[in-house]
Amino acid sequence: MRLHDALDYHARERGDADLAVQDGRRISYRQAQAATERIAAALIDAGLAPGDRMAVLSKNSIEYVLLYYAASRVGVVPVPLNYRLAPAEWAWIVNDAGARLLIATADYLAAVDGVRAGLGSVERFVAVGAVAEGWTPWEAWLAAAPATTVDRVIGDDHVLYQMYTSGTTGRPKGALLTHRAVTSNLAQFALAFEPRFGERWLVVVPMYHASGAVTSFAAINGGGCLDIHRDFSPAAVVRALAEEGIGRTSLVPAMIQACLLAVPDAAERAYPSLRFIAYGASPIAEGTLRRAMATFKCDFLQAYGMTETSAVLTYLLPADHARALADKPGLLLSAGRPIAGTELRIVDEQDRPVPNGTIGEIVARGPQLMQGYWNRPQESAEALRGGWMHTGDAGVLDDEGYVYVQDRVRDMIVSGGENVYPRVVEDVLFEHPALADAAVIGVPDPTWGETIKAVVVLRPGARCSEAEVIEFCRGRLGGFERPRSVDFVETLPRNPSGKVLKRVLREQYWSGHARRVAGA
Amino acid sequence: MRLHDALDYHARERGDADLAVQDGRRISYRQAQAATERIAAALIDAGLAPGDRMAVLSKNSIEYVLLYYAASRVGVVPVPLNYRLAPAEWAWIVNDAGARLLIATADYLAAVDGVRAGLGSVERFVAVGAVAEGWTPWEAWLAAAPATTVDRVIGDDHVLYQMYTSGTTGRPKGALLTHRAVTSNLAQFALAFEPRFGERWLVVVPMYHASGAVTSFAAINGGGCLDIHRDFSPAAVVRALAEEGIGRTSLVPAMIQACLLAVPDAAERAYPSLRFIAYGASPIAEGTLRRAMATFKCDFLQAYGMTETSAVLTYLLPADHARALADKPGLLLSAGRPIAGTELRIVDEQDRPVPNGTIGEIVARGPQLMQGYWNRPQESAEALRGGWMHTGDAGVLDDEGYVYVQDRVRDMIVSGGENVYPRVVEDVLFEHPALADAAVIGVPDPTWGETIKAVVVLRPGARCSEAEVIEFCRGRLGGFERPRSVDFVETLPRNPSGKVLKRVLREQYWSGHARRVAGA
Repeated sequence: MRLHDALDYHARERGDADLAVQDGRRISYRQAQAATERIAAALIDAGLAPGDRMAVLSKNSIEYVLLYYAASRVGVVPVPLNYRLAPAEWAWIVNDAGARLLIATADYLAAVDGVRAGLGSVERFVAVGAVAEGWTPWEAWLAAAPATTVDRVIGDDHVLYQMYTSGTTGRPKGALLTHRAVTSNLAQFALAFEPRFGERWLVVVPMYHASGAVTSFAAINGGGCLDIHRDFSPAAVVRALAEEGIGRTSLVPAMIQACLLAVPDAAERAYPSLRFIAYGASPIAEGTLRRAMATFKCDFLQAYGMTETSAVLTYLLPADHARALADKPGLLLSAGRPIAGTELRIVDEQDRPVPNGTIGEIVARGPQLMQGYWNRPQESAEALRGGWMHTGDAGVLDDEGYVYVQDRVRDMIVSGGENVYPRVVEDVLFEHPALADAAVIGVPDPTWGETIKAVVVLRPGARCSEAEVIEFCRGRLGGFERPRSVDFVETLPRNPSGKVLKRVLREQYWSGHARRVAGA
Repeated sequence: MRLHDALDYHARERGDADLAVQDGRRISYRQAQAATERIAAALIDAGLAPGDRMAVLSKNSIEYVLLYYAASRVGVVPVPLNYRLAPAEWAWIVNDAGARLLIATADYLAAVDGVRAGLGSVERFVAVGAVAEGWTPWEAWLAAAPATTVDRVIGDDHVLYQMYTSGTTGRPKGALLTHRAVTSNLAQFALAFEPRFGERWLVVVPMYHASGAVTSFAAINGGGCLDIHRDFSPAAVVRALAEEGIGRTSLVPAMIQACLLAVPDAAERAYPSLRFIAYGASPIAEGTLRRAMATFKCDFLQAYGMTETSAVLTYLLPADHARALADKPGLLLSAGRPIAGTELRIVDEQDRPVPNGTIGEIVARGPQLMQGYWNRPQESAEALRGGWMHTGDAGVLDDEGYVYVQDRVRDMIVSGGENVYPRVVEDVLFEHPALADAAVIGVPDPTWGETIKAVVVLRPGARCSEAEVIEFCRGRLGGFERPRSVDFVETLPRNPSGKVLKRVLREQYWSGHARRVAGA
């Protein structure tokens, strides 16, 4: 199927139902269908042919959702830009994609203007919710296009969007996802639920990212309604969960924690419609989960996947969470098991499967894989060699098929010939009562190649020395795994999904040194 | 996805749940997974490679379902045989497919033996539930295969089954359906429902036919349980609907009518779990629908499609039935509107779309279309020309997109240059109080090319003459549409789906004449 097929179906069968609400605005399925046809007509009028790229720079909004579906109709390929990146990074992506059109919301016009000279491929800049020199206003742009019946036949092997990987390593790469890959993924993970028409999905994870985009698509596939949050506000999320009849939402564990910590009355409220909270990007701490369950009284679900796999590869299901809390707390560290139609293996550096319990690279196969990276034949072939997506994540499988994501393969430290997975060390540091956050990296060493450095954040008011931290690890870790040095910082650099940017962390220590990484 | 992906997923997540029950036997998802792996090992042990054909001759049974899924694992292609055909017809199909293996249940062994000399491609005959000379017993066949881990990679573009069209015209043709086509269709029509884990599906329509096969697959995709009926017994169906917690079933209107007529206490019973009854093959009469709704107090749904489209192209949804009964009874004659991801058009003999309200051939496009007919490149290209499945059905679209299936294009009568659709005439004959059944065909005429003949069945005890029937049509039909002659018969020849076999009906009148048909 194509992405917009489900929207068209529900627009016909339940056209008056809400497709999305935001800040008091609402749009029905029928209105959304008409709006996406209108936008599609404007795309055609702008001369965009199937396969032409359109950059989008916006926080979560109704227009963002409509743009994905309008582009789907006419084969124009959205290139969602991460608004947290620097303008020069947007420019790099826009040029890499060769986008002919750039659509941005008011917040970003000035920043785009600052790099406009470097955006040679862009023929037209469209501003949503603002009037500015050099920008075509959104409404005028739509009004100017002659009404036309869109009659472009877009097959399901056409590219639906080009989404840039978050770039924890090197320059971002544009992952190409076809309609078939994304709609297959929607069908795959739908088997884990009992979808309900009209169910409300709170979407606060960003729509420029696979998590927010595919969550929105899943809601619309099921005839549900998006409750769109532009920014993350713990109080607004808790209020919506309690008062807006929300049935499902996707968050990251840090957001769940913020809801619990920053909203004092969260535990006193009732969440009568809430069926479950999905979370991703990292495992959830047992204490946070217990508190969240006591507060929200709903199911929890962890998703693991990446831009290159549409969205989901594995789920840690509600039943797994129940089992973890009953007698197997370690299961909460797992990312769960493959969803229907997905194969997952752990392989060594020669792509040979390793025994259960052995660490290696997580590779996966299924209909949800990307077609490749835009204009990167070599990296595409490398990432997809043998038909398996090489995730770059180190992981381990247990005998029941649960996968434990350990680290990015590139973050593995090779010290004196021994492989050290930072996550193993970090798990110990997280137990230290004075530490609020921690990341472990390899730093250059003339003797060992790399030695282990811990970069840590103290809890407010807590005190602790480098020697104490190292001593704490003794007995808890093998000698080659213990940090040799500890740096104290205010905060760790993280990407928008909450992952620590190890590459950024390493930079100051590696300037002038070449780092050899596994598989590279 | 591949067909078996959903079975494997549910076997892992709800392994103890029933996958199917029949006559007191039950098999769980976990057991079904193991059984299909066992059968798959036997298929490999028998030397069957991906793409090899396996003929299956059985009424509905647990083994039938398992065979589909076992074959799915290893790429062996089931060729389900219609058990209502004559043994010589089975032989024709087995030879056309070049089946290397034939699996049959006890009922059919003697009949197969009668044509065995003509089954040159079959290397092994396996008997389910019987011991007979020249047949390998099912259990022994499975036990003899060495236990093996099936590690064949079957992509979703592999053929899942080869199903012969019911052959209302000419020799049956083997339609090739891929995993992707069938699982796409499952995803397409699932959007019309809110699937429920553990829901019980009564399956009485035959599994050799798309209706019974795909209904079974849909149940398993949703983690439901099949309640398998080997033969249609109105009393057994009513009892199961009332007592077995059935949530859904698929029937043909004649079965619904039989349940109402043959089970006197049907209206006094309660059907607390029943969500809806799907029906296909033909529209439902308003009176039957009203009575069925009053009896079963559930929703009704009509499906239209064919072997060549996996299963479903259109649905007349419960809301459409409600609307029909409220103020638009004619809607019950419609087959509804396309399911998600399906395009449907009415075209003329040059494949040009015709205006709404104009009769023409129904063509459809979507991911659920067959790959083509086995070894029939010309007929495949003809059926799928331009990427559209040419259904061979005549139909008309209204302004709301509802399609009304009028007739097989080949059954259209050309009389004195006027096109007459038999359905129009039959609808009038059905109103005649003395007639229980009616079919209208063209018979050769030296002046007009063809003239119109009605073949009718009297109600028990009723009387009626040819002249009365023709007179009844006056004022109700145009002159060129009125029957010129009427034949009275005991019963009309129908195929297993309940469609009148016009070809058979015509034979006695056309011997020695050549009939020119539209599009041929």
